[in-house]
Amino acid sequence: MSVHMIIVMQHQAPKEQLDAVLERLTEAGFQLHISEGVSRTIIGVIGENTKERIAGMAVEAMAGVEKVVPILHPFKLAGREFKPEPTVINLGDLTVGGQEIQVMAGPCAVENEEQLLTVAQSVKEAGATILRGGAYKPRTSPYSFQGLEEEGLKLLAKTREATGLKIVTEVTGVEFVPVVAEYADILQIGARNMQNFQLLKAVGRTTKPVLLKRGPSATFEEWILAAEYIMTEGNFNVIFCERGIRTFESYTRNTLDISSVPVIKHLTHLPVIVDPSHGTGKWHLVTPMALAAVAAGADGLMVEVHPNPSQALSDGPQSLTPDNFLELMIQVRAVAQAINRQMGKLQ
Amino acid sequence: MSVHMIIVMQHQAPKEQLDAVLERLTEAGFQLHISEGVSRTIIGVIGENTKERIAGMAVEAMAGVEKVVPILHPFKLAGREFKPEPTVINLGDLTVGGQEIQVMAGPCAVENEEQLLTVAQSVKEAGATILRGGAYKPRTSPYSFQGLEEEGLKLLAKTREATGLKIVTEVTGVEFVPVVAEYADILQIGARNMQNFQLLKAVGRTTKPVLLKRGPSATFEEWILAAEYIMTEGNFNVIFCERGIRTFESYTRNTLDISSVPVIKHLTHLPVIVDPSHGTGKWHLVTPMALAAVAAGADGLMVEVHPNPSQALSDGPQSLTPDNFLELMIQVRAVAQAINRQMGKLQ
Amino acid sequence: MSVHMIIVMQHQAPKEQLDAVLERLTEAGFQLHISEGVSRTIIGVIGENTKERIAGMAVEAMAGVEKVVPILHPFKLAGREFKPEPTVINLGDLTVGGQEIQVMAGPCAVENEEQLLTVAQSVKEAGATILRGGAYKPRTSPYSFQGLEEEGLKLLAKTREATGLKIVTEVTGVEFVPVVAEYADILQIGARNMQNFQLLKAVGRTTKPVLLKRGPSATFEEWILAAEYIMTEGNFNVIFCERGIRTFESYTRNTLDISSVPVIKHLTHLPVIVDPSHGTGKWHLVTPMALAAVAAGADGLMVEVHPNPSQALSDGPQSLTPDNFLELMIQVRAVAQAINRQMGKLQ
Amino acid sequence: MSVHMIIVMQHQAPKEQLDAVLERLTEAGFQLHISEGVSRTIIGVIGENTKERIAGMAVEAMAGVEKVVPILHPFKLAGREFKPEPTVINLGDLTVGGQEIQVMAGPCAVENEEQLLTVAQSVKEAGATILRGGAYKPRTSPYSFQGLEEEGLKLLAKTREATGLKIVTEVTGVEFVPVVAEYADILQIGARNMQNFQLLKAVGRTTKPVLLKRGPSATFEEWILAAEYIMTEGNFNVIFCERGIRTFESYTRNTLDISSVPVIKHLTHLPVIVDPSHGTGKWHLVTPMALAAVAAGADGLMVEVHPNPSQALSDGPQSLTPDNFLELMIQVRAVAQAINRQMGKLQ
Repeated sequence: MSVHMIIVMQHQAPKEQLDAVLERLTEAGFQLHISEGVSRTIIGVIGENTKERIAGMAVEAMAGVEKVVPILHPFKLAGREFKPEPTVINLGDLTVGGQEIQVMAGPCAVENEEQLLTVAQSVKEAGATILRGGAYKPRTSPYSFQGLEEEGLKLLAKTREATGLKIVTEVTGVEFVPVVAEYADILQIGARNMQNFQLLKAVGRTTKPVLLKRGPSATFEEWILAAEYIMTEGNFNVIFCERGIRTFESYTRNTLDISSVPVIKHLTHLPVIVDPSHGTGKWHLVTPMALAAVAAGADGLMVEVHPNPSQALSDGPQSLTPDNFLELMIQVRAVAQAINRQMGKLQ
Repeated sequence: MSVHMIIVMQHQAPKEQLDAVLERLTEAGFQLHISEGVSRTIIGVIGENTKERIAGMAVEAMAGVEKVVPILHPFKLAGREFKPEPTVINLGDLTVGGQEIQVMAGPCAVENEEQLLTVAQSVKEAGATILRGGAYKPRTSPYSFQGLEEEGLKLLAKTREATGLKIVTEVTGVEFVPVVAEYADILQIGARNMQNFQLLKAVGRTTKPVLLKRGPSATFEEWILAAEYIMTEGNFNVIFCERGIRTFESYTRNTLDISSVPVIKHLTHLPVIVDPSHGTGKWHLVTPMALAAVAAGADGLMVEVHPNPSQALSDGPQSLTPDNFLELMIQVRAVAQAINRQMGKLQ
Repeated sequence: MSVHMIIVMQHQAPKEQLDAVLERLTEAGFQLHISEGVSRTIIGVIGENTKERIAGMAVEAMAGVEKVVPILHPFKLAGREFKPEPTVINLGDLTVGGQEIQVMAGPCAVENEEQLLTVAQSVKEAGATILRGGAYKPRTSPYSFQGLEEEGLKLLAKTREATGLKIVTEVTGVEFVPVVAEYADILQIGARNMQNFQLLKAVGRTTKPVLLKRGPSATFEEWILAAEYIMTEGNFNVIFCERGIRTFESYTRNTLDISSVPVIKHLTHLPVIVDPSHGTGKWHLVTPMALAAVAAGADGLMVEVHPNPSQALSDGPQSLTPDNFLELMIQVRAVAQAINRQMGKLQ
Repeated sequence: MSVHMIIVMQHQAPKEQLDAVLERLTEAGFQLHISEGVSRTIIGVIGENTKERIAGMAVEAMAGVEKVVPILHPFKLAGREFKPEPTVINLGDLTVGGQEIQVMAGPCAVENEEQLLTVAQSVKEAGATILRGGAYKPRTSPYSFQGLEEEGLKLLAKTREATGLKIVTEVTGVEFVPVVAEYADILQIGARNMQNFQLLKAVGRTTKPVLLKRGPSATFEEWILAAEYIMTEGNFNVIFCERGIRTFESYTRNTLDISSVPVIKHLTHLPVIVDPSHGTGKWHLVTPMALAAVAAGADGLMVEVHPNPSQALSDGPQSLTPDNFLELMIQVRAVAQAINRQMGKLQ
């Protein structure tokens, strides 16, 4: 059993204060390590849910207490202690979290059948294995286009039939979980919903792999605990997706935290991919950051590709044209080989 | 009609590039202001949903375009343009957003009847008018206590009967909106759910005032747009609640952004209150920050008070003892008078 | 003597690993507290400069070590442990850090004699006691106006003679310390130079009070350690000045962290003032934030006032007109009285 | 000539307000673009130092003005407009900014001759071309070891003679520029001094290449303007060094912003390298982040290597052992080849 909390008593705190602290902790059923030094006592606390219970008991504010230090406790289901070997998720012939790198590509939102099919074929030819596209769109403003909803899901499914690409799409509310799970191969939890605990539990009760985007101000600990919410309901197939955090820098839309790739690999047994499109917000940064992600050990990428190559002058601020995407894939393949990984392949 | 977006062409961009941009914008139905200068053209764009449509059309990436500058557009329902005079929300005899300052106080979570009643009576005597207390608790970890749920709501309602205090409590999912709305006087949307758009729409369809906490990394614009989600469903009684943002500073739990009080007053007609307990995470900072909030013009406070005064040695890291809370109220009253506000009063 | 660092060994780390850690620490001359629990050992480490020495010794990376936790050690000279009663700095008839609140006001940069005198007289009439104005300007861009330098200092001194106002002005490099110290009553260290350690030491060797602005990304600990640099050279008259930190929010120029007022009061014995002009970057937020600062316990304010009231249409984005400033002073006085403080007064 | 600022007038601002704005701008000597639309006028402003002058003139606060939008102006000396082709800096036989990738490695601080030589030989064998090591150390706390100063520089020079490695070392104050420039091949400006403008100008007057670390809260624009300070003095050999920014995430010491590599390449013609040791603060993240940096296009790396391989159990929290460093170099070489770059080589 591991120590969950350390309580440092103040320099020369009187014995009555120490006794009061020990008594309260003992009454609450905690097991204690006591280290009495020359001038200061340190208490190690062991027990269930220590962090919140200690906070609730207000030990930090007791007379004589200098500091209460939480010890990052092992993540019960996501942690390496629970399962040392990496989790490899099967997706038909594809695997996520093993030797293969899977690239998920497609438009931001599903708009119509023809556009979707065109972009799907072009990303498949370039080497993508999974089609991304939003049917339910979480929008900052209520006045924006909210997505085609079930109609969009049907178009995604139709495109899967035509191309063989797997489908990943976002689910934005508990009430949409059944319908999205019916059509999609991977359920995406968006960044804004990373701590929508009802939604996490709902996808945890399905059997579909879940792509869990990092919240824009979520710490690694909070992100992994969000995965624990899904896993406690029985669904162990969680894929983390780094998409940038919010910082003071506004030239890029977010600051894409590539270090989350080795950090997630270090703390958990689960796969992690990177979304350089949302992570930077600028199309000319997508390819360099995709290469960085793969070099750092990411298990995949999620890339926005512009659905309409005929409007050839341009692409959206963060979307690649099909040509740019092809170039990205060529370079990604080279870096993947350099670190002894292979690109995923549809049969 | 106001300009929504400004497009700055590059220095000496050739005419064909300018024409291509103008053509695309015109085709899309936008109205344009064109300013041709000696060496550079500037285009003002007017139209519905300009920001997202322009992004979707990828104008920023067109040849010859240097910069696309969004103009913060007036908030349709929350903005001062829509309704210049401040909104005053009636809550029985109390008002929020007028001359009165309302203090919401109580325990973090509802635990049992006796504790709740004790703390309710003590905060009422000190001058609080609204009882806060969580029945449904959004927890970062799935292994933590999740609240008493409907049982907790019943205890809150019972305490209201006994004391006359109004009730504010959090609703954590769409499915709980009906039951919470049945018991509570104010529905609280927690910081983690500030962009749970399904939940915002659901509380927007009730008739109860909504307390909308600021997300830990939400900009003012995003926060106000979250209020727009509630208001577009017909519920105009939104109260903003600043509770701190996430920054690099870790001595305080969050950085309580007091400037949000005058900013919200400047940009919207809605009331705004401050939660110095979650905003600082340290009990000894709660009173100074409560005074700061009131001096800056806040319409109220939300304060955690420790439910168990018999364990008199202590209070939680961010909870005040009933005695500390009484002291806070005495000082808040003095500052309120200095700026010509009155404390709210139950009949 | 107090524990400076806690080392938590891993769950069931073998004895050899523990011994290796203990040996290295003992060799380095540290005094140790050892707490052997059922399954885990915790080591308290006592010694000089523990934090950096432990980091240098790489204990965190030794086999068997789970976590190294630094304990915020008392600040040797600035801390309350060193001197429990608050420091009151004398400035002629004025005091900073006692019952009085001093308001420092004036233009951003000194431009010419007439403007300076005009603004000085108007802020004095409104109740300011100290004139602010930059002679040496640290500019983000090398292409911007860099200040009048010694000429500006002379104008400040002349205005002091004419009005009796004390002078605070910034010193931007070690080489300017003698000349600025010759003219100014308070030496200001700007936010960008908060960790320019050579400069801190140089002002520490003067006898003038030092106004130490918080760096835009400085933690409380780093800020107080910067004060320690000044104090170790013998100058104990340090005044902290909160001026906003850099966060994701860009509507305000910085996020003014009002909580630094009670935090600095809690951790140190030194005075702290607030600069709402740089802290918000918007003139209409200056007065509410000035009131918030005073209510939270600040010992003073630093406010930009526009030097040219004849161009009456306007004031700079963050500067108040003389009229706005007068209004601010009336309200500040009322809040100061509410919390039993007085406004400083020149004889 | 390019527009430097755009002024958006309010919806239906009366003509007198517009005239007042135009008059003030014209008086100040600006050239104007005026675009009068149906309901709103937009003014483009052209002139020297527009940003600060407009701010000083307080145009934003004039009646009728809705918004003042600065246009990111081309960086005069560092920008691609000034010099489209990339700058390649010669360092004896080595180049920085061309096809070669240079790895700078060594201990955090120079401690003694034997240690320095040992680590220098091991990093050279692994493929590093430049030795790093601090002689003057900027320390957050005045109670920490401040470096060997000139003695340290002499040891670095001696090690250069013995190994052929080039030397990069930090200069912490204007007064140390001559002595550091005498010994070092590259002068390093530390993150805390990125806006110490006196120091930037002083190194700008030397002929040595300057390694300019990014400040922990510096935007890309501020970082490039710091390079402009050096370049305006005549020294064009500036190398940017990303070393992480300060964010809310505390698991890593900083958030290493790999996107700065393609951003700097996009906005300037200067080289950029990455320091994954300070950028992450954890040795096990150094290699993955080094690979990411190279894949993203960095021109080099700066890596801390532990000076004492005989204490073989460990390495510092962010330092690699010589063995780990060798492994890093093998992998970096593979990724460099994958993107068609070569590793720098000493003759």
